[in-house]
Amino acid sequence: MNSIHTESLHLTKASKAIYRDALHVLPGGVSRNTIFHKPHPHYVAKAKGCYVTDVDGVQRVDFANNMASLIHGHAHPAIIRAVTEQLEKGTAYTLATEVEVRYAEHLCGRSENFDKIRFVNSGTEAVMAMIKMARAFTGREKIAKAEGAYHGTYDFAEVSQMAHPGNWGDLDKPNSVPVAFGTPKSVLEEVLVYPFNDLERTLRILDAHASEIACVVVDLVPHRIGLFKAKPEFIEGLRAWTQKNGALLAFDEVVTFRATTGGAQQYFSVKPDVTALGKIIGGGFPVGAVAGRSEVMRVFDPTESKLLLPHSGTFSANPITMIAGRVAMELFDENAVLALNALTEKAVSQIEEAIKLADVPVSITGAGSMFRMHFRQPPPTSYRETYQSTEEKQLLADLLDYLFYEEKIMMVNTGTCMFSTALTQKEVDRLAEGLLNGFREMKPRLVELRG
Amino acid sequence: MNSIHTESLHLTKASKAIYRDALHVLPGGVSRNTIFHKPHPHYVAKAKGCYVTDVDGVQRVDFANNMASLIHGHAHPAIIRAVTEQLEKGTAYTLATEVEVRYAEHLCGRSENFDKIRFVNSGTEAVMAMIKMARAFTGREKIAKAEGAYHGTYDFAEVSQMAHPGNWGDLDKPNSVPVAFGTPKSVLEEVLVYPFNDLERTLRILDAHASEIACVVVDLVPHRIGLFKAKPEFIEGLRAWTQKNGALLAFDEVVTFRATTGGAQQYFSVKPDVTALGKIIGGGFPVGAVAGRSEVMRVFDPTESKLLLPHSGTFSANPITMIAGRVAMELFDENAVLALNALTEKAVSQIEEAIKLADVPVSITGAGSMFRMHFRQPPPTSYRETYQSTEEKQLLADLLDYLFYEEKIMMVNTGTCMFSTALTQKEVDRLAEGLLNGFREMKPRLVELRG
Repeated sequence: MNSIHTESLHLTKASKAIYRDALHVLPGGVSRNTIFHKPHPHYVAKAKGCYVTDVDGVQRVDFANNMASLIHGHAHPAIIRAVTEQLEKGTAYTLATEVEVRYAEHLCGRSENFDKIRFVNSGTEAVMAMIKMARAFTGREKIAKAEGAYHGTYDFAEVSQMAHPGNWGDLDKPNSVPVAFGTPKSVLEEVLVYPFNDLERTLRILDAHASEIACVVVDLVPHRIGLFKAKPEFIEGLRAWTQKNGALLAFDEVVTFRATTGGAQQYFSVKPDVTALGKIIGGGFPVGAVAGRSEVMRVFDPTESKLLLPHSGTFSANPITMIAGRVAMELFDENAVLALNALTEKAVSQIEEAIKLADVPVSITGAGSMFRMHFRQPPPTSYRETYQSTEEKQLLADLLDYLFYEEKIMMVNTGTCMFSTALTQKEVDRLAEGLLNGFREMKPRLVELRG
Repeated sequence: MNSIHTESLHLTKASKAIYRDALHVLPGGVSRNTIFHKPHPHYVAKAKGCYVTDVDGVQRVDFANNMASLIHGHAHPAIIRAVTEQLEKGTAYTLATEVEVRYAEHLCGRSENFDKIRFVNSGTEAVMAMIKMARAFTGREKIAKAEGAYHGTYDFAEVSQMAHPGNWGDLDKPNSVPVAFGTPKSVLEEVLVYPFNDLERTLRILDAHASEIACVVVDLVPHRIGLFKAKPEFIEGLRAWTQKNGALLAFDEVVTFRATTGGAQQYFSVKPDVTALGKIIGGGFPVGAVAGRSEVMRVFDPTESKLLLPHSGTFSANPITMIAGRVAMELFDENAVLALNALTEKAVSQIEEAIKLADVPVSITGAGSMFRMHFRQPPPTSYRETYQSTEEKQLLADLLDYLFYEEKIMMVNTGTCMFSTALTQKEVDRLAEGLLNGFREMKPRLVELRG
């Protein structure tokens, strides 16, 4: 890859200069590790639709959309218009606004599983609120989550998100592995880790603590586990178990809500008790939410004689996020969802064609407007299969660098695409071609990896 | 107060109608309990500077400023201009932006205690990140916090925030009291609760767990404890103890950073290891941050061979918040801080005059551009003294209602004012007069309360 890096050097001068300054005031020069990149991150000058232009004047097609949060790409005119109008009226008050009510009505109207909703400021806050809700509703202390699943940075939610062969333990009873150094042992003990899509093992793990579990948290198409769908019988099994044992079934749809008008949960016949939302429902602004059954949502209700979960937030449901989100989601109606999913499906089939043409051991998983590449065939079916060796990680980073510098294509750093409605067949063709070139460039290493 | 409510009924029709709808989709009809109000919350139509107009057309002077987060009041032209310009370029990317670097430089330039900074999305996220940092840096599990202090909704941070006489226990060793029903006992056990400003008792509590404490969290002018300043010898004592025992001294300046150009910490001779920020540094948009010593901030650094605290956030350091915050804080320079604090001091002296004129047992505490009323003289010096009986809470709610409906004045629901630079002597006069009227109206009950 040295030739590529050398060739591209002159196109990163401005980003490099900013990064030099950044190192003095931000740890490692970044505010989010997601955007960290060696030898330096890149800085955006402007973005419009599905194109992002960096400070060195390089324009790229965006298939990452701020980690899946921009369903209409960048600077959508209708969102700009609505936000500009609100700006003149203020951005936050110590009183309520009508738009939070209207937007709540819209979101609750998208799923029969959402009787009521509460807004917060991020996906991390949404999952934290959801877990606290489950504890408040059940009076129980433990939660269960899938090994490898990402649910934000709340300690309890992040357990085993980065488990690796050196610490993940027996699949029959995966270890609770901390993400952050110094995570209290007591936190780890409150979290049961189950293997996603492995119902038999999961039920045995849950059964061992049946009366202590407040909720089972599950992402229906978990990005970090491998971005493949939950098996219907797995979700049905979790629903039956939670119902029987007095625990809540808690879906994390922060990423996956884009899958249908009512989220990935519409793929399944079961109803969750609560769902965490975020990303696209903010229309490009900080957001999170928890939606669910009235009976459970009542733990937030300040009119109750005994308020079980006192909860507030300075910027929660601020009118800018509410208006941007409402415009974005109203535009993301059934037709828009279907069109976007069809375009994504088209992209996947073109990339599968490129995989065949290049004859490389690569596979694609995904659902709705999301897909992820894996350097293996057939695709992985578990977190432990998806888990990448250092060598594989480096190969992925090199492929993504090739796409970024040479093909001017941006993907999520896991080799994932999160489509926006701003994309068209033209960009899909470019993606498939770019990947074909990349697969050919990397073929010897891809083959060797699985050799 | 019945006459007042009846008189005002016709001015709340529109708010009441929205609230009726809200009850169907939001638990208790609200997204933040702070804005909950009996019989219903009020909804904002527009706001400008220090004036807020609700959907019934009633204009009020705003002394709450979205719970202290709007240092220049509403819809400041320079902030609107900067945000409008950024909107055309996008609101969030999977790459970095220069403005986060320039804003980090600005904030680090405001205090010699801020070598480096990391941005998050709320004060809750800031305090959570700060606590996780302290654990990651020290490898220890416990934290210490003051009884009654509010630090957001992270379970560990909210312990004993609402402790009451029925559960707070002996002052020599206050109980760890949960806020949320179902809070794991293990969480309570990780949190030591100390009595603010009581150095002797606090040191005895800390000494009992000297080797287990990751950080001592302290708000230097804690709003919920009573909004009075920490004693210098208390903060110096915490600094000496933490230094000696290998723990971090962690300031929560989410609210108090407004006190001077570099926060309330400039009142003291000691340097903290880390500081949590939020509220005003977002310029009216969702924000949080942790700033501190390079050595400690390094736990976030993704370039380190062993990353101690993996941490990301979809909307962290988004360019809208960064630009709005930067404009707001650059305008809030030394002259602006001094002028605002002088106006606030003037307000306090006028209100103290009103207290004398009305001859009521009321006192005022505060610092910088913040002050709080107490229905007692002399003012409280501890959380337990500040703690309000049901009767006192009702009296405060009635006084605030009187101000809200009759005098058209908004304060924080604790009887607190958080000033903005949009306020002038005219509004201060109105506040003092309004309070004088309110004190006279309430005098029999105020006197009886302390009788």
